[in-house]
Amino acid sequence: MSTTTNSITTVVGDYLAAWNARDAGTRRGLVERAFTDDATYVDPHRSGAGHDGLDTMIAAAQEGLPGHHIEPNDDVDAHNDRVRFSWTLVGPDGPIAVGRDFAIVGADGRLQDVTGFVDPVA
Amino acid sequence: MSTTTNSITTVVGDYLAAWNARDAGTRRGLVERAFTDDATYVDPHRSGAGHDGLDTMIAAAQEGLPGHHIEPNDDVDAHNDRVRFSWTLVGPDGPIAVGRDFAIVGADGRLQDVTGFVDPVA
Repeated sequence: MSTTTNSITTVVGDYLAAWNARDAGTRRGLVERAFTDDATYVDPHRSGAGHDGLDTMIAAAQEGLPGHHIEPNDDVDAHNDRVRFSWTLVGPDGPIAVGRDFAIVGADGRLQDVTGFVDPVA
Repeated sequence: MSTTTNSITTVVGDYLAAWNARDAGTRRGLVERAFTDDATYVDPHRSGAGHDGLDTMIAAAQEGLPGHHIEPNDDVDAHNDRVRFSWTLVGPDGPIAVGRDFAIVGADGRLQDVTGFVDPVA
């Protein structure tokens, strides 16, 4: 159980790091470590599929939010092949939103189907 | 958008009502209205698939929790073919847990893949 939990925690860490990685090569490496080859992502504002599509999607999100980054909330909660976790979007003037992500985990431990929801900062 | 929202709200209402319905015929009708024919459900304690399997799973959960019911938290949040919502498990002495469910919605508007997570009462 702790091996599984550590593994999914690492994958989620890579996933969140990808959203922050503005160096193209670094971001691509993180996308490949975080997502299965055929992974999909959808939230209220964007969607993408596959490593190419997901990398392009994240790069576009970064361009739309200069000076922003996300901070993990360290609340990864997994059971079976499912995981949830949240993060805070921080802009130049401080926290502006909380993202709550849900994912189905693929057989190799990477994220296969990610759904993002957004909440106001508490 | 409001039609979609109303529709998913109705489906989630039927889903939550199924967990409370201790009359077998009523429960089965709600299971059929809430879930696609091939739907799956998984949480940390149980899983089920298909109308028969889901009905049996819910009946077993009810038997294990006599005197308990769930109350919707009226926070259905949907986008694309995804939805999240929460509910409170209430026992004879009051609220004992909060369930947070995430689902993929099928083409006909019923729930196709439901994942349950459990949090302590705030």
